[in-house]
Amino acid sequence: MKILMKNAKLLKEAGYGEDPLYLVITEDKISYIGKEAPAQDEFDRTIDCRENLVIPAFYNAHCHAAMTLFRGYGEDLPLKRWLNERILPAEDKLNFRSTYFGSKLAIAEMIRNGIISFSDMYMFEDATAEAVLETGVKANLARSIVSFEDGIKKEEDARFAEAVRLVEQYHGAGDGRLKIDMSLHAEYTNVDATCRYVAEYAKEHGLLMQLHASETEAEHLQCMERRDGRTPIAYLNDMGVLDVPTSAAHCVYVTDEDIAIMREKNVTAVHNPVSNLKLGSGIMPIDRLASAGVRIALGTDGAASNNTLDILKEMQLAAILHKGISRDPAITTAAQMPPMATRNGALAQGREDCGLIAVDAKADLVMIDMNAINNIPSYGAAETLCYSANSSNVILTMCDGRILYENGAYTSIDIECLKFEARQVIRRYFD
Amino acid sequence: MKILMKNAKLLKEAGYGEDPLYLVITEDKISYIGKEAPAQDEFDRTIDCRENLVIPAFYNAHCHAAMTLFRGYGEDLPLKRWLNERILPAEDKLNFRSTYFGSKLAIAEMIRNGIISFSDMYMFEDATAEAVLETGVKANLARSIVSFEDGIKKEEDARFAEAVRLVEQYHGAGDGRLKIDMSLHAEYTNVDATCRYVAEYAKEHGLLMQLHASETEAEHLQCMERRDGRTPIAYLNDMGVLDVPTSAAHCVYVTDEDIAIMREKNVTAVHNPVSNLKLGSGIMPIDRLASAGVRIALGTDGAASNNTLDILKEMQLAAILHKGISRDPAITTAAQMPPMATRNGALAQGREDCGLIAVDAKADLVMIDMNAINNIPSYGAAETLCYSANSSNVILTMCDGRILYENGAYTSIDIECLKFEARQVIRRYFD
Repeated sequence: MKILMKNAKLLKEAGYGEDPLYLVITEDKISYIGKEAPAQDEFDRTIDCRENLVIPAFYNAHCHAAMTLFRGYGEDLPLKRWLNERILPAEDKLNFRSTYFGSKLAIAEMIRNGIISFSDMYMFEDATAEAVLETGVKANLARSIVSFEDGIKKEEDARFAEAVRLVEQYHGAGDGRLKIDMSLHAEYTNVDATCRYVAEYAKEHGLLMQLHASETEAEHLQCMERRDGRTPIAYLNDMGVLDVPTSAAHCVYVTDEDIAIMREKNVTAVHNPVSNLKLGSGIMPIDRLASAGVRIALGTDGAASNNTLDILKEMQLAAILHKGISRDPAITTAAQMPPMATRNGALAQGREDCGLIAVDAKADLVMIDMNAINNIPSYGAAETLCYSANSSNVILTMCDGRILYENGAYTSIDIECLKFEARQVIRRYFD
Repeated sequence: MKILMKNAKLLKEAGYGEDPLYLVITEDKISYIGKEAPAQDEFDRTIDCRENLVIPAFYNAHCHAAMTLFRGYGEDLPLKRWLNERILPAEDKLNFRSTYFGSKLAIAEMIRNGIISFSDMYMFEDATAEAVLETGVKANLARSIVSFEDGIKKEEDARFAEAVRLVEQYHGAGDGRLKIDMSLHAEYTNVDATCRYVAEYAKEHGLLMQLHASETEAEHLQCMERRDGRTPIAYLNDMGVLDVPTSAAHCVYVTDEDIAIMREKNVTAVHNPVSNLKLGSGIMPIDRLASAGVRIALGTDGAASNNTLDILKEMQLAAILHKGISRDPAITTAAQMPPMATRNGALAQGREDCGLIAVDAKADLVMIDMNAINNIPSYGAAETLCYSANSSNVILTMCDGRILYENGAYTSIDIECLKFEARQVIRRYFD
């Protein structure tokens, strides 16, 4: 399969000029970018981008996809009641089938919003894996491990065993679209031994780590009390966890010492601004992390605490939120944001050839409708993307050279059938 | 014209149950709401709502419509540079024609986003008035008055004269769709005499007042220095301005005394969360204002500081922002938000029969696609509207019984022609 995209506008912040360019997609990769038209006759398809903006597709660096089932289930409640009265009892009833449909619903929404890869930590990740393979997206999936028994042994840890089975069954599947990571749910849900053997296993097998860290002030304070004055980041570092390439979701209450550790260990801080606001957690110190050189990626968290899976929205909120909080409109810039929504997520997932537009990079692309009423006028494409556009302006989503969504139509999902099935599952779920 | 809408879901928070209902629209009003089907044959059109959500259309309670021309012109700059280097020089070149196309572009975006009425304070409001009359929306327009000469006389105030001409020419036009308000730009841009004679004129003619108040901390502090310790709200009250029914935009730095005055004088606080964040101004204390009983409406401000005209987005940000700042996820609720986006804006505009779904109310309606991928599942319509929906889910916008937008098509605007004309204006504008 060879696709020609003509009249594509690329971001000048990514090193491209003002003029529209030609892109050639050969199989799963970008094989040409330039001002000169390649010979027409050799292409299976030619797409006229009409000077619309073509950017790397979005990465969702922190998600619990199947929680789409609980979108809006338990709104406006204090955190403990939300968790104990709503989410935990609902999660207790999850099974393979419901997780599969919840994940597929999430993937359909993400594709529509220009997201082609997500990092996920949850249960029944084999169901999510099947949904990923089937729909053509990418994902780093991880069985989220919790352990409360002090003397627990690796051999007796059923969740760890499940995580290992997942690695054996799915790591690298779908021509590498699917990766399996290790995941410690958080500092406050694990004991020393588990942290150590999960980290050890990840190191031995060259896997990545996903975890939650410093989401709430209570977590931060209680950790320091429980762990001899150590913060979650300091504790996890002491356990050897951060020697594994790690994505740490939230990082709302990180200290300067935490930030220094994160920089040294190359931990990715995953910013989830909508979820952090909605759950009343607070706001990640994006300026302190960015100026220290910590890699920042963006995530949606699960739909139960968001309620949408929309990285463009996270990017826009991140861009304005920190201006408002610091009362400094120059503290964040439009140019700074697209890498957080694309390349940084790809690097956090260990996908070096993804999240950028370059020859030999994977052809993961999104086209943004610059003729939409909300994008006129545009004095700069990055600014329009960051402040004016919305996810309905995504008119094409491509993953590994395959078009997954174009002008309202999905190519890998029977969307009405999926909506029907998902509704059936949900209806039965709470009966 | 008589329209039947069947299978309409209404918000139970507005007093309606779970069952879908029939609505009848007779000319510009809602004439029937009920479970029983009225006789079919008498209708010009029947719309099957398919259990989609039907809500009052949105009100944008603070806007500078023509600034859509400057959408994205001057991003990420400190406030003074944004204003002095970008906005003021650009505004200096405005004329009737550019204001007309800027306003029309704004109206097209608002209609698409389910907004059927806006409050506007700016220049060349006669151009905006023409755009309003032509496109079928409602608006309260006001010539924004500034005055820096201490000894200024009413008779010599050219801006006031323009405001009066606007009243004489347009107040009540379009069967009342168009109203003209008075507007003092702000405390810091006016002298005592002007405040008094503008307020006096408004009282004499039964007009409303639009102004900016306490947007930034600098404004608040400098006012107290300049006005013998009085805040903007206290000063405007002393000048008799707040005896006129007033919409005060921003109210970020209001004191408890200000809030007491606002409650007593029935001032509407217009919350513009996106603009306040983006310009680095801060955050309106929504909880203090709401618990004191001050009416709160939502506004977008101009596109130059937002960059979109999307009240659904403002509502969603308002709902989560205050949770995050206060670290209390229960401080704002989904049920609280729709009135701010609809009825409160209508009341602020002096439109008693608007902004609600009731028999004899104006038929200003929006239909939200509950079958959109981002709205599945829904455990409560208000929650879905508030946290899950986005403006692309607006599938029908009706104003005074007239459908202005339906499934991607405008009925009162040639949208491609408008985009072309607006782009021509913008291209020439900065040459």
